[in-house]
Amino acid sequence: MMSADDIKRLCRKVKSASRELALTDTKTKDRVLIAMSKALIKRASYIVRENERDLASAKRKGLSPAYLDRLRLTVSGISGMAKSLSVIARFKDPVGEVIETLRRPNGLLIKKVRVPIGVILIIYEARPNVTGDCIGLCLKSSNALILRGGSEALNSNIAIFDILNDVAVKNGLPANSIAMIRDTDRRIVKQLLESDSLIDLVIPRGGESLIREVTKTSRIPVIKHYKGVCHTYVDRSADLKMAENICFNAKVQRPGVCNAMETMLVHRKVAKKFLSRMIKRFSDSGVEIRGDAETRRIAPYIKRAVENDWYTEYLGLILSVKVVTDIDEAIAHIMKYGSYHSDAIVTGNKKNAGKFLDEVDSACVYVNCSTRFTDGAQFGKGAEMGISTDKLHARGPMGLEELTSYKYVIYGTGQVRR
Amino acid sequence: MMSADDIKRLCRKVKSASRELALTDTKTKDRVLIAMSKALIKRASYIVRENERDLASAKRKGLSPAYLDRLRLTVSGISGMAKSLSVIARFKDPVGEVIETLRRPNGLLIKKVRVPIGVILIIYEARPNVTGDCIGLCLKSSNALILRGGSEALNSNIAIFDILNDVAVKNGLPANSIAMIRDTDRRIVKQLLESDSLIDLVIPRGGESLIREVTKTSRIPVIKHYKGVCHTYVDRSADLKMAENICFNAKVQRPGVCNAMETMLVHRKVAKKFLSRMIKRFSDSGVEIRGDAETRRIAPYIKRAVENDWYTEYLGLILSVKVVTDIDEAIAHIMKYGSYHSDAIVTGNKKNAGKFLDEVDSACVYVNCSTRFTDGAQFGKGAEMGISTDKLHARGPMGLEELTSYKYVIYGTGQVRR
Repeated sequence: MMSADDIKRLCRKVKSASRELALTDTKTKDRVLIAMSKALIKRASYIVRENERDLASAKRKGLSPAYLDRLRLTVSGISGMAKSLSVIARFKDPVGEVIETLRRPNGLLIKKVRVPIGVILIIYEARPNVTGDCIGLCLKSSNALILRGGSEALNSNIAIFDILNDVAVKNGLPANSIAMIRDTDRRIVKQLLESDSLIDLVIPRGGESLIREVTKTSRIPVIKHYKGVCHTYVDRSADLKMAENICFNAKVQRPGVCNAMETMLVHRKVAKKFLSRMIKRFSDSGVEIRGDAETRRIAPYIKRAVENDWYTEYLGLILSVKVVTDIDEAIAHIMKYGSYHSDAIVTGNKKNAGKFLDEVDSACVYVNCSTRFTDGAQFGKGAEMGISTDKLHARGPMGLEELTSYKYVIYGTGQVRR
Repeated sequence: MMSADDIKRLCRKVKSASRELALTDTKTKDRVLIAMSKALIKRASYIVRENERDLASAKRKGLSPAYLDRLRLTVSGISGMAKSLSVIARFKDPVGEVIETLRRPNGLLIKKVRVPIGVILIIYEARPNVTGDCIGLCLKSSNALILRGGSEALNSNIAIFDILNDVAVKNGLPANSIAMIRDTDRRIVKQLLESDSLIDLVIPRGGESLIREVTKTSRIPVIKHYKGVCHTYVDRSADLKMAENICFNAKVQRPGVCNAMETMLVHRKVAKKFLSRMIKRFSDSGVEIRGDAETRRIAPYIKRAVENDWYTEYLGLILSVKVVTDIDEAIAHIMKYGSYHSDAIVTGNKKNAGKFLDEVDSACVYVNCSTRFTDGAQFGKGAEMGISTDKLHARGPMGLEELTSYKYVIYGTGQVRR
């Protein structure tokens, strides 16, 4: 195992690189990103082979299809990662942007200027494509990065990291601007999380136990990327054909991800008409429905939902369904059982839409569209570091801007305080 | 002592109030703030009497003059607090502001809308005027607030809180929008810091041990308001008369606060000329100087600075002074010993100014003015919740905007993800 000293030494090197990286010009950073993008394409078959080793061992361990879906890297997935890097290269450099300028009555000129955060630690599970996206976003925003991936994706992560790090160093980025912890011993995470003088931000992406552990242990600020128990509420006044398409998309198009719908809420006045068609369509596509008593009166053949279902992120083809008396009951349900990630209402009533948007306290609230849009690229951010379920600093999809802090730069001509 | 159940019950009430408060209109909030401002003026002599009880007991305990300065509330201090509340009332309501609007190619309309954070816990030491400012800023930004003041200021804090809470409830704010923990047992803080499902943000304002304890224990996001070891660097090309006024102001005008200068760095080419006048002026005003070897060659009668001096926030009339070879040594010193709060350069050289502003990684970096300007009111924010020394979410003076989060509101017409 890496010793505490090894870890401290590594973190110090990355911290020191972060100071240099903060002063690196946009041209150098963009050149590196383009070279990284090309290197991924060139080495795609190597990455796929390493990924196949991870997949084989995950299958042996009996991990779920949703898990394997998140772990899998195809050649087209790798092109996607490469494309993200070249898209990030074309994005405007956020560092140095003047966010606000203020002239005070005493003549002081105050500028609020965007700066990098410093050193970011990302702790993630499966999903090796996260490796490329995070490296690209962090370097473009001049943040140094320490990656701690899950043991299941270790070979894939190492393959991607080694290719990208090699390109970074050869193209003039400070050595140790990115680092990967290859030792999968869990005690290392604890030591990293206590290094609050060397690491500025921790982003954990993953399941409940990971998030809990990080939140409890960390002395470093944390932005949680937690589960998505996403809801769609079909209101009394909804266009039911539209509602059907939205709900079907939110559940079925890619069920293994955090912005997929887990619970569907339906107003009782339209429940019978809507659910009889909708449940059939879901069942035809292999979705298992778990309903409350009212839903089971309409479709007696489906399973009963138990209390725990309402809290569950299935990440697969299962859906819980509840019939509600009105919009207030729908909102109360979402606030009680949801994870404040992404929730949608389908309605033809403007007042109800407004009420839902105001009162549902989630990162993303939708009217008349699928929750699947919660995504950095869909929001025009190029790529994403993940989706924050926290309220501090960044909420929802995190792109380049969300990876920056700011400083106040004040220009005087001899002013003193009276 | 309050039991764990008492604390949980209190936090639940505040959480529930925060939901209502988030939907409270601007007019109601402003009416409350104006009424609060008037009530403080009306009850000023009562508050002063309660404050005198705290002062008497602090004196008996032998607390320092700087401490007593921060603890003292005069009638004019209370008018200041009252004025802050009426200024906050006139500020624009940050809640509901559309920060960004985006139309996507698929027709989705995405709005990034400012929302309150939720429930904020502030843990502070002396300074009872913090009570009024924090209540004003939190209510205006629709955040519920739990106050945990230091035992030394308990009578003052209770007096202010009771007056303001009475006004809030009578003028139609949800009950329990603000709460004060009157039990000063330290174990209560630990329990509060573990209530991450009920409290959204903790702001600790105070000394090293408080900040360390909070950072270590908290599962709730923390924005630290830590010490200010602020520097002024007098460059070779500085206008020395200007430098003298700036340094004198930064040290002497109000030495007991976090934005006062603690260390002065002087380029060796101007050290003799500058320091012989400057040290005399400081000594005449009762400032004790602690110098490095070079400074003591110029002024042999002053004390020797030891390693620990460079890390120290004196909060009083003591100043450490060091002669440096060049701007690089000055920056390296600040980055090693400083607290990343506020640092200034006095220079006539544009290139050096730019280098200092880029490379000193502090919340506020100044050219040719006093560090004492790091302050919410001075920055045009009306009042401040404090000065963040963190890089996440908010940095430097925290006003209304810094007390908000945001949500994405997405309007569709049936869009689904392809």
